[in-house]
Amino acid sequence: MLPDPSERAALARRREHLARALGSTPAVLASSRPRPRNYAADQFPFRASSHFLYLFGLAAPDGMGFYDGQGWTLYLPEPGPDDALWDGAVPGFAEIAERTGCTVRARAQLPAALKGRAVATLPTPDLETCMEVAGLLGREVRPGKLLPLDEPLAEAMVALRLRHDDAAVAQLRKAAEVTAPAHLAGMRATRPGLLEAVVRSAMEAEFLSRDVRPAYCPIVTVHGEVLHNLKYHHALREGDLLLADVGGESPGGFACDVTRTWPVSGRFSTTQRELYEVVLRMQKASISAVRPGVRYRDVHLTAHREMARGLVALGILRGDVEELVVDGVTALLFPHGIGHLMGLDVHDMEDLGDRAGYAPGRTRSQEFGHRYLRLDRDLEPGMAVTIEPGFYQVPGILGDARLTARAGDRLNREVLARYSDVRGIRIEDDVLVTATGHEVLTAAIPKEASDVEAVMARA
Amino acid sequence: MLPDPSERAALARRREHLARALGSTPAVLASSRPRPRNYAADQFPFRASSHFLYLFGLAAPDGMGFYDGQGWTLYLPEPGPDDALWDGAVPGFAEIAERTGCTVRARAQLPAALKGRAVATLPTPDLETCMEVAGLLGREVRPGKLLPLDEPLAEAMVALRLRHDDAAVAQLRKAAEVTAPAHLAGMRATRPGLLEAVVRSAMEAEFLSRDVRPAYCPIVTVHGEVLHNLKYHHALREGDLLLADVGGESPGGFACDVTRTWPVSGRFSTTQRELYEVVLRMQKASISAVRPGVRYRDVHLTAHREMARGLVALGILRGDVEELVVDGVTALLFPHGIGHLMGLDVHDMEDLGDRAGYAPGRTRSQEFGHRYLRLDRDLEPGMAVTIEPGFYQVPGILGDARLTARAGDRLNREVLARYSDVRGIRIEDDVLVTATGHEVLTAAIPKEASDVEAVMARA
Repeated sequence: MLPDPSERAALARRREHLARALGSTPAVLASSRPRPRNYAADQFPFRASSHFLYLFGLAAPDGMGFYDGQGWTLYLPEPGPDDALWDGAVPGFAEIAERTGCTVRARAQLPAALKGRAVATLPTPDLETCMEVAGLLGREVRPGKLLPLDEPLAEAMVALRLRHDDAAVAQLRKAAEVTAPAHLAGMRATRPGLLEAVVRSAMEAEFLSRDVRPAYCPIVTVHGEVLHNLKYHHALREGDLLLADVGGESPGGFACDVTRTWPVSGRFSTTQRELYEVVLRMQKASISAVRPGVRYRDVHLTAHREMARGLVALGILRGDVEELVVDGVTALLFPHGIGHLMGLDVHDMEDLGDRAGYAPGRTRSQEFGHRYLRLDRDLEPGMAVTIEPGFYQVPGILGDARLTARAGDRLNREVLARYSDVRGIRIEDDVLVTATGHEVLTAAIPKEASDVEAVMARA
Repeated sequence: MLPDPSERAALARRREHLARALGSTPAVLASSRPRPRNYAADQFPFRASSHFLYLFGLAAPDGMGFYDGQGWTLYLPEPGPDDALWDGAVPGFAEIAERTGCTVRARAQLPAALKGRAVATLPTPDLETCMEVAGLLGREVRPGKLLPLDEPLAEAMVALRLRHDDAAVAQLRKAAEVTAPAHLAGMRATRPGLLEAVVRSAMEAEFLSRDVRPAYCPIVTVHGEVLHNLKYHHALREGDLLLADVGGESPGGFACDVTRTWPVSGRFSTTQRELYEVVLRMQKASISAVRPGVRYRDVHLTAHREMARGLVALGILRGDVEELVVDGVTALLFPHGIGHLMGLDVHDMEDLGDRAGYAPGRTRSQEFGHRYLRLDRDLEPGMAVTIEPGFYQVPGILGDARLTARAGDRLNREVLARYSDVRGIRIEDDVLVTATGHEVLTAAIPKEASDVEAVMARA
């Protein structure tokens, strides 16, 4: 619940940067209330709001961080009379102040401090917390909605969180560290006849046993063509590919986001291997493109071009590579974006809409296959992004004449039909933009077809 | 997501019973919106509201069940244009109607059906859903708050859910079935030097691999004296007892709630065994008392009397058994209630406050150790309850002179100090009240000290 002592200075620096950007405008950031699952006392595992975590590193419910125009104070609930019985000893205000480097006061004192002031805030995803903050501030606070007063706070927070400081990079590394054994365990647990749930369980157990949790609902499916497939009830069949999009959360709440795709049998079929190699080349080419100054949309297009080249070579597509991309033909088989920002959220700062992902003046394309691109900024050192190309045979797309019309005779369905044992492949790594290029944070997780097969053979 | 075909008739019967109780008063019950974790698209695993699940068996977000004064209709969102890409094929309205036995219409048609009517509802735990229902009904809807119009609905729902029908009992059995292997895995995974998290992981993996989930946040701790200890970071030491309060959820959403306490070393020490046997006798005596017509508070007091007898025999307490109970001396070492209702919620229907747990005219005691008793009804066939006595050395209680004053010299601290290797023991089973007595739903999970040791020895 408390931040690591090594983070104290970074937390103070983040608050100082934000204070400088805010000037004399006061701001409140809430940690969030615990979220009830069935009833008030039966709760989802507590997750503090990412903005609050970023500034205070404290995973404590019902906290409020207040910048009064000069400095920061943490307002926390005082322990109730029965808390020790139910929840045990909790750190006192003095210890929290020491670890966060921030003054701590009782929550009951917050209303007086706020009185009569126009205060900026960022809405938490939890409506109940928003309502509470709205009551405290005497103004509207709603998820996804910013008042004009909040805009400079949102801009400052985005500017700050976009480029990860050393403490954040350390957390991203920890998240990657716990994610590697999960993918190895998943590969090793895979066997024909088992449920997808068994592999999911083996992967998630690696997080739980290290006392961390998944950063997002894991996708572990033989139906990789369903992009957000959160069901685990299918049996694994000999000829299936299993797609696992599974990442852990660091102790400080930072996310890792990794996808691997492996053959249930332990050996890729010829057709699976051919398409796997295309996706792997798409991924490597995209990662190679990551460096400061490069526009992320161009990384996305790099993947599409590599896909066009690869699928033309296999005979699945015909025609000019550039035209296949521009006309949206490759998008029929790779309909999502190449990736997104990574940080305390798996899509970092998506709570602020496209403000984080899109540079000022840039907006989302309305084109099929490109409108899901969540990031279009020029890359800067310290940014962390995912690179996650894929190949999918989605019945809803390939069976939709309005969508496939763009391909004309450039999509060879006869050849594509030979690859029916590939429904979905995705290969995803987390990449940190460095001063001169990039570093793959999740490089320890095997992705060469032969390495994946070797892991599975040793199981 | 769909109910099992075998449940169709039971679901229809439940709706029919409720309709009869409501007469011409219309009612709406919401399934709940998905709950955002970090941002709108990053969600906690979806859990439908228990009242909705009880009537429709359908774990689908954004559903509304509407009783118009004559019959029930399910109003569900129509799939969006991109849903098939992201979420795959979902069952159509016709299939849902067939499986639930209920008419299904598009959500967009609900406002017209509600127009101008005074409609009862039960608030979901999710405020956002409450606000949505409030908007639809043009009235206040808040978690934990019932309008006079809602009272008959709440009463009818409690009357219905209190006594489980065959379909509900089948679900409770399934929840118990998945919980047994979790406890066996926990015992087998326990070894000095490991983190609590490792044992928790081994237990939870048994749920995940069967494609179900924990019914509540698992407690797996060497600090059992902290009653709701949700931390897993302690290392297991040779002389520790490990307390695991872990239960699975059935596919239909019903809970199991089981606690076992086992020695990290695999063998209870003499002192641990002596106190373990006291708690086990408390538990067996309490279970034996469960039958129709018995007041649950008397089951609670049975445990306290058995505790008094056991601790007097060990020399920890002195004095008259009845007085030790009445004066609240045993409550110092067993400060929580003997149990609670079980069903779709682990504390069944606690969203309705004490309306479910307390019979009309009965209210909670204000006495320490008895005010946490969540149930005080005369038991009836079909009720399911937990029986979960414990023994705890809580520093916050034993160090509080105001609390311990009641014991006078009846608490022998010198003898108690010899039992310092016992911080917390709890033994908990789920018990179904039958026509003539009771059935322990979780009887398959070892609890005799020798059986627990045998399981651990085989690991």
